[in-house]
Amino acid sequence: MSADWFRRRFLPGGPLTAPRPPRPRASPVPYRRPRFLRGSGSSTSTADASRRPDARPRPVRSPVRGRALPWNAGYAEIINAEKSEFNEDQAACGKLCIRRCGFGVEEDQEWLTLCPEEVLTGHYWALFDGHGGPAAAILAANTLHSCLRRQLEAVVDGMMATQPPMHLSGCCICPSDPQFVEEKGIRTEDLVIGALESAFQECDEVIGRELEASGQVGGCTALVAVSLQGKLYVANAGDSRAILVRRDEVRPLSSEFTPETERQRIQQLAFVYPELLAGEFTRLEFPRRLKGDDLGQKVLFRDHHMSGWSYKCVEKSDLKYPLIHGQGRQARLLGTLAVSRGLGDHQLRVLDTNIQLKPFLLSVPQVTVLDVDQLEPQEEDVVVMATDGLWDVLSNEQVAWLVRSFLPGNREDPHRFSELAQMLIHSTQGKDDSPTQEGQVSYDDVSVFVIPLHNHDQRRGSH
Amino acid sequence: MSADWFRRRFLPGGPLTAPRPPRPRASPVPYRRPRFLRGSGSSTSTADASRRPDARPRPVRSPVRGRALPWNAGYAEIINAEKSEFNEDQAACGKLCIRRCGFGVEEDQEWLTLCPEEVLTGHYWALFDGHGGPAAAILAANTLHSCLRRQLEAVVDGMMATQPPMHLSGCCICPSDPQFVEEKGIRTEDLVIGALESAFQECDEVIGRELEASGQVGGCTALVAVSLQGKLYVANAGDSRAILVRRDEVRPLSSEFTPETERQRIQQLAFVYPELLAGEFTRLEFPRRLKGDDLGQKVLFRDHHMSGWSYKCVEKSDLKYPLIHGQGRQARLLGTLAVSRGLGDHQLRVLDTNIQLKPFLLSVPQVTVLDVDQLEPQEEDVVVMATDGLWDVLSNEQVAWLVRSFLPGNREDPHRFSELAQMLIHSTQGKDDSPTQEGQVSYDDVSVFVIPLHNHDQRRGSH
Repeated sequence: MSADWFRRRFLPGGPLTAPRPPRPRASPVPYRRPRFLRGSGSSTSTADASRRPDARPRPVRSPVRGRALPWNAGYAEIINAEKSEFNEDQAACGKLCIRRCGFGVEEDQEWLTLCPEEVLTGHYWALFDGHGGPAAAILAANTLHSCLRRQLEAVVDGMMATQPPMHLSGCCICPSDPQFVEEKGIRTEDLVIGALESAFQECDEVIGRELEASGQVGGCTALVAVSLQGKLYVANAGDSRAILVRRDEVRPLSSEFTPETERQRIQQLAFVYPELLAGEFTRLEFPRRLKGDDLGQKVLFRDHHMSGWSYKCVEKSDLKYPLIHGQGRQARLLGTLAVSRGLGDHQLRVLDTNIQLKPFLLSVPQVTVLDVDQLEPQEEDVVVMATDGLWDVLSNEQVAWLVRSFLPGNREDPHRFSELAQMLIHSTQGKDDSPTQEGQVSYDDVSVFVIPLHNHDQRRGSH
Repeated sequence: MSADWFRRRFLPGGPLTAPRPPRPRASPVPYRRPRFLRGSGSSTSTADASRRPDARPRPVRSPVRGRALPWNAGYAEIINAEKSEFNEDQAACGKLCIRRCGFGVEEDQEWLTLCPEEVLTGHYWALFDGHGGPAAAILAANTLHSCLRRQLEAVVDGMMATQPPMHLSGCCICPSDPQFVEEKGIRTEDLVIGALESAFQECDEVIGRELEASGQVGGCTALVAVSLQGKLYVANAGDSRAILVRRDEVRPLSSEFTPETERQRIQQLAFVYPELLAGEFTRLEFPRRLKGDDLGQKVLFRDHHMSGWSYKCVEKSDLKYPLIHGQGRQARLLGTLAVSRGLGDHQLRVLDTNIQLKPFLLSVPQVTVLDVDQLEPQEEDVVVMATDGLWDVLSNEQVAWLVRSFLPGNREDPHRFSELAQMLIHSTQGKDDSPTQEGQVSYDDVSVFVIPLHNHDQRRGSH
């Protein structure tokens, strides 16, 4: 994405400023559930039904017994409380087979193509929480792993070296290259982080093209865990969350990207390009929506460069609807969207206006790295990944407590991680023994992976 | 600062794009040392002289014995190794007397002006590290505390309340105001943080006007510690540093802002406004400067949205000089400046071009808050503030070791914090008993405050 492209695409006078009705050239993305759920049974959460007698019981779905996910991970999901017919969450997981493709550029090195089995193997788990329809999340579940494989294949030679070479192809023209790489502190894992960043962006472009072609709309968050060479990479764009739970430790592996957590970045863009607000919104943050009565009063505010608060005199322009409004779960970007990073939403506009959301959204994830080898994981050490529906009603500590209560008593059960994932979802449904405060209930879609870290080493293939 | 102003000021076609020779309308800012150094003696560091026989001994200066700084803080400084005649560091400290000025708007409330003695008292310590001449640092030392006092007086009513009221003046028009303020989590300390942020910006504007009027140039970093209501606020814009040293703890109270640490923010601005680089620089980061031979090669790079590294094929535009070049101490913004935040530099341009540095610089500090009351500070708990010359050769742990070695044996000396400040500076001069690796020597200006936290409570006046 270039600055020129950004201006043409989003600023007044650009070709796409007026909302174009999508012209379907392809058939819509078909609705589906993850392949690993085929033939799965479901357990029913009755607690919800007992509290809301009008609602049908909500089934919790998990893979059938005997169908193992990578590392024997557990998975479970529940559809929202009749907000819509379809589950807008999607999930994907599988093996990542990365072929070496950094062949020499010289013709006499072509024999290297004779060794196509040269591979690095990893594993992949992903959750996508859709909004505005399920299409973007389905496309992401179908596409992101391929983008990631492609991006990793472009750097796999560098990943296999102790330090990434500055040049991959041809001979090294600068004898001091490794030194430069070392001085900059570039590590092998920085190539994987770069590949994840590029893969999210590539996938976002694919989704944009596909949705435009099929005349569909929507967006999704993306939370991805990838195991490679003894490390677990967690990439997050949106408000899902991953945590590590050990006997004595609960460690967040991601942080949430919402209009509130990214306030300064979003206000900064509106400062640089006020055209993006079309005179309809105010960039400033106030403690509440201001009213006509407030004119001339001194009121608390903050702007893009401030982390503290200050006072200003209310002017007429301050009465406009705020760029970011509301607190916590209610915070919205341009009154429309609750997340500030994710995939899709290329056509999303503020209701009844030409104001686009996409310029304010980032598809780039934040990536954290967990050195699983160094961790020497124990039998009950797991990573819990879940969409926001779980974290709305359960804290990290409550989830850790549930994990630690469940696993030790079920050591013999080969499906215990799947059982644990189901149990976590049941705990969001307001059952009396749930640890949520006052039996809080999640009416959102919820999807959960439980990834056991023990023995990860025997399962990773790298030759 | 508005976006419009930014565009007029910095983008092509704006009135100031062509370098204007400054037209002096006022006399130059006179050189000076901090007032509290008047009549001070100096101890001489001979170690330096022995290593560089051609150099004169460099004197270490401290306030005269008997002249107490706030909280009995220690101070010492040394001038650079003949890089220039003048010390480009400046320091300031003193009492902050904040008057209540939030009078009612109604005429019948004017009696409040009869109580002008209503004050909140704080203390202030500041270090400014100048570059391109001493003028900006001198102006900052003369000005910043006044800006801060003004900004604090504008919010002192809110600071004295348990929670800052949404409206300061007139009656509270919205009965639910406190609730909104509470939901947003706005605390009294957020007003002080906001006041520090505003004061830095105001001071930057004053410096810009004064330097233009006097035909001078230059900029400076700013590191400020302010004690108010039992808390210590540390505001930093630049590469100076403050740390807390306790018996069992070393805690950084600031982080450095350099072209390296702010790479993504700086690249992002160049992405949004490529005009700022005038076609002379490349926004991308590479492991080293690329050469003509590299054309067509695959090379490591990263752009504004990446924290990881990826590979790209070298194009002609990649051979331009990089926006941020060099590593560590050698890293430079536009080949010119080693810091990315600070005050001044309004006229600074890349040598022999019209390319301005100021758009890439922030005057806003990052503020951290230390709850001194809650800390229950012990006899030897101190905050060490110093310009980068100290931290170039001593790590946080080495400084903590020196503090812990020195203070317990000197409990009876009323000037021990001043002695400690001098000792820290001597340790940067390559003496044999210095803890620096291989007796590293700092040839930079160095200034140090040592602020004891014990008994801070008895010294703060707040009525």
